[in-house]
Amino acid sequence: MATRKYVIGLDFGTKSCRALVADAKTGAVAALGVQDYVHGVMDRVLPDGTTRLGADWALQDPQDYIEALEHTVHEALTQAALSGDDIIGLSVDFTASTILPIDASGVPLCTWEKYSRRPHAYVKLWKHHASEPQARQINRLLREKQVLDHPRYGGKVSSELMLPKVLQILQEDPEIYEAADKILEAADWLTLLMTGEERRSGSTAAYKAMWSEEEGYLPSELLKALDPRLEHFVEQKLRGAVWPVGSKLGELNAAWAERLGLLPGTAVGTSIIDSHAGMPGCGIAKPRQMMLIIGTSSVQAVLSEQPYSGKGIMGGVKGGIIPGYYALETGLAGVGDIFEWFINTSVPASYKAKADEAGLNLFRYLSNLAQNSKPGESGLLALDWWSGNKTPFVNANLSGLILGLSLTTKPEEIYRALVETTGFGTRMIMEAFETAGVPVDEIYACGGIAEKDPFLMQIFADIANREIKVSAVEQTAAFGAAMYASVAAGSERGGCNHITEAVSAMSRARGQTYRPNPAHAAKYSLLYGIYEELCGYFGERSDTMKQLKALRVQGISQTKKGSL
Amino acid sequence: MATRKYVIGLDFGTKSCRALVADAKTGAVAALGVQDYVHGVMDRVLPDGTTRLGADWALQDPQDYIEALEHTVHEALTQAALSGDDIIGLSVDFTASTILPIDASGVPLCTWEKYSRRPHAYVKLWKHHASEPQARQINRLLREKQVLDHPRYGGKVSSELMLPKVLQILQEDPEIYEAADKILEAADWLTLLMTGEERRSGSTAAYKAMWSEEEGYLPSELLKALDPRLEHFVEQKLRGAVWPVGSKLGELNAAWAERLGLLPGTAVGTSIIDSHAGMPGCGIAKPRQMMLIIGTSSVQAVLSEQPYSGKGIMGGVKGGIIPGYYALETGLAGVGDIFEWFINTSVPASYKAKADEAGLNLFRYLSNLAQNSKPGESGLLALDWWSGNKTPFVNANLSGLILGLSLTTKPEEIYRALVETTGFGTRMIMEAFETAGVPVDEIYACGGIAEKDPFLMQIFADIANREIKVSAVEQTAAFGAAMYASVAAGSERGGCNHITEAVSAMSRARGQTYRPNPAHAAKYSLLYGIYEELCGYFGERSDTMKQLKALRVQGISQTKKGSL
Repeated sequence: MATRKYVIGLDFGTKSCRALVADAKTGAVAALGVQDYVHGVMDRVLPDGTTRLGADWALQDPQDYIEALEHTVHEALTQAALSGDDIIGLSVDFTASTILPIDASGVPLCTWEKYSRRPHAYVKLWKHHASEPQARQINRLLREKQVLDHPRYGGKVSSELMLPKVLQILQEDPEIYEAADKILEAADWLTLLMTGEERRSGSTAAYKAMWSEEEGYLPSELLKALDPRLEHFVEQKLRGAVWPVGSKLGELNAAWAERLGLLPGTAVGTSIIDSHAGMPGCGIAKPRQMMLIIGTSSVQAVLSEQPYSGKGIMGGVKGGIIPGYYALETGLAGVGDIFEWFINTSVPASYKAKADEAGLNLFRYLSNLAQNSKPGESGLLALDWWSGNKTPFVNANLSGLILGLSLTTKPEEIYRALVETTGFGTRMIMEAFETAGVPVDEIYACGGIAEKDPFLMQIFADIANREIKVSAVEQTAAFGAAMYASVAAGSERGGCNHITEAVSAMSRARGQTYRPNPAHAAKYSLLYGIYEELCGYFGERSDTMKQLKALRVQGISQTKKGSL
Repeated sequence: MATRKYVIGLDFGTKSCRALVADAKTGAVAALGVQDYVHGVMDRVLPDGTTRLGADWALQDPQDYIEALEHTVHEALTQAALSGDDIIGLSVDFTASTILPIDASGVPLCTWEKYSRRPHAYVKLWKHHASEPQARQINRLLREKQVLDHPRYGGKVSSELMLPKVLQILQEDPEIYEAADKILEAADWLTLLMTGEERRSGSTAAYKAMWSEEEGYLPSELLKALDPRLEHFVEQKLRGAVWPVGSKLGELNAAWAERLGLLPGTAVGTSIIDSHAGMPGCGIAKPRQMMLIIGTSSVQAVLSEQPYSGKGIMGGVKGGIIPGYYALETGLAGVGDIFEWFINTSVPASYKAKADEAGLNLFRYLSNLAQNSKPGESGLLALDWWSGNKTPFVNANLSGLILGLSLTTKPEEIYRALVETTGFGTRMIMEAFETAGVPVDEIYACGGIAEKDPFLMQIFADIANREIKVSAVEQTAAFGAAMYASVAAGSERGGCNHITEAVSAMSRARGQTYRPNPAHAAKYSLLYGIYEELCGYFGERSDTMKQLKALRVQGISQTKKGSL
């Protein structure tokens, strides 16, 4: 090719969107546009400011995605001084299962005036845990039918999947369910808008909607048993072919080409779950290499030659990320959001004043205070379940715990205990991978915290007792999406032909490596034993957390909902 | 008598001293002098500012007591416009076991230049828990000798008693032990100074030094088995007759009469443990009435016709408070100090700013925010063990816990959970009294928090599901001490002849009464069930807290000390 060609990776996260422009052959990053969603995560009220949401709701406004998409693409093109002629493909990664109901012309129901005050008309974000009663109802049915241990269900259906969210719409606002021409992932909605293709991503279908290549979606008799009105759910609301990851889903239509400043016909890749995009993005293309994304929550994924599912680990999908391989995937329900909660709610004014004086933000100020202490010295231990536990208990009703408090406990000690507990949770998942037959030899970390927080990374390396390599690219998900965009364009237009080819052609050199301190690793092994003991008690043997959660939900709704 | 006569009750608490002047016949309060101890509680460094203390140390400077004594008496006399002629008696109450080593002339060893940097030369405050390894050593021996369940030991010896503190001095700084002419309670040291009498209070001897009228102190063979150097501890270091509560211990000597502005010969009562003084102070003189002092920590005591000891309850002493009765006594290791810890370490700058704006202190600001929420609504539950647990586990190695944390948890919710957990701990003690055969019909509350915190008092009434009456007198301990002073003076000088007579003559009308809200009481019963379950797990079945404490102590001292 005479001139360089570029691709755009679009990464739609929990709070913001990023558009990364990279060279379609070498991976050299040319620009990055970023925009926060105007309404962020709505967990208390709708955009009208008055319609209140119940406990554990988490909605978004789909218009925010559109604005972020347009803004970030224009910003990135301007930054890189490129025009639409230079761009051969784009591809989207998105949080999942993040779903919305739309009408026959693709318009979200929440934008209809008559539905604008109806919570169920909005986007349900992946972490909308208010569908927990519906998840329990589904699990009861699957248990009765003795199919719960089928790899498709992974031993327990979480409220983070699609079906509990759909069932909640049907049960609580059947008019919205009826009015929906389709219910689909936000990622599929964006590719539908941009290409006019009804095709749905095989990534979200398989990981979040229990679809498999051999059997399709859930059988209608099972859906009917759940609720008679769901019998024809698949034909009625899930229309659209499921399209393979690592391929072209369609081409940019004229209207959206104009809105984005790109050429009509630009290749659009099959979308992929945001966290999964990070896997090629940080250079992983073979088993025993674990991707560790550390941000608001975390993702841990490892390629495998065998399928596995259970303990919150989704790993029954072949080719869901990298063709030819299964990918075992799970993560912590919360990491950065726990630290942010602590910073916002639990650090005293005296610390804030000293941090301001030193010109440091509170994260850095607390890290500096905490980093000279030794493992175990504070006597504290926490359970990282502020948003429940995914692995091994798959239970959103578990909650956060801090133990070992005394009158001499200092904020920086609690902060360190919170960092440590997410490290212990990360180790517990690695041990679950090992149990599943996929030991982890190498850890490749990425995500905001991995890049910016050496205090946490050293603790994670000490707890895992393994080296952790941080990706050299800052936006690994967006970078991975750019790789998929290159594959969507294909070599004829100047891209790559296969995702493994893209990984080897476009990957960047490694960033910093954290090596475990043997003395700290030994002490952390003792503390991890106590962490395991507490997990076993609160996760399995004791109902105390679930009882408290039930009392809380009753308190908020003033009505008794479901059982434990 | 032609003119009114007055008495002084001197109340030496954890942080400050109060001198209360009251009419010796009617109890009418004439004045109150208050002074904080200059060095407060020393838990990090000695007064030199450089000699560091280990984990769980809590010392005081005896010179602070002297200054507070002089200052408060003068202040109270000035306030009341009284002279020494008007005062017929004084009596001291004091925290216990709060001990110090003194030389043959009554001078504390810490005031000797050569010992001024030696931590063991200072006063060990009641909550000096660094003697926990020694307490464990004593318990092991008593268990071997099969006498641990003797009422004198109450099933477990706590580090808050005298002997573990003495043993720690002997083991860690034998030179101080040798140099001590006597080791005695701070209360006995003050009465020794003021009267020249070597007599020791029967209150502290019985409750804190395992003395009994029938058997005296511990037998020398047992002390020898603990450490050969302790064989003659009683004759060498505990010299002085044990003197009965509710009697005159001696008379003010000339030197101290001058220092205090009183008359030589003024009657000085036998001192009593500070918390016990509150019992007559709030008008209790018969069984089934529980005194509840709520301050830095709490005290719960109830009179009984039968002795009882066990589960951290000291109740084997007849006439230790009110002649003719046993008194079952225990309490929470921490209450107000936990709230203070929270206010100082865990409330964000944004709250501080809003509280300042509203002209409220943070306690009141958080209470206002928390008081409209309902029991269970936050999903939080705490274990009130920031300073360990006295009843039922008698274990200083247990620690504080907060459970049910989520990303929406607010500071005022945690604050309320801390208030609630101290209410649950209070209920657990009432149930232990019931098990001991002394059900509680009436609750009389006193102490700083009982008087000033209606938010907490209502929650306590809801959790106990009983009315709580707050004492009309603000300083019940000092007021009780004034009653003992009146008895020390006797009717000939214008006082009372017996403490029960003083209680009926001097008691004041009741203050506010808190009545339980039935709906809240019902919800709290459910939460109390979960609290009990957690207590059983962490107090008995699981070693996790003890293991964490052991790792912490190792971390601080860098050497391995004792077993769990």
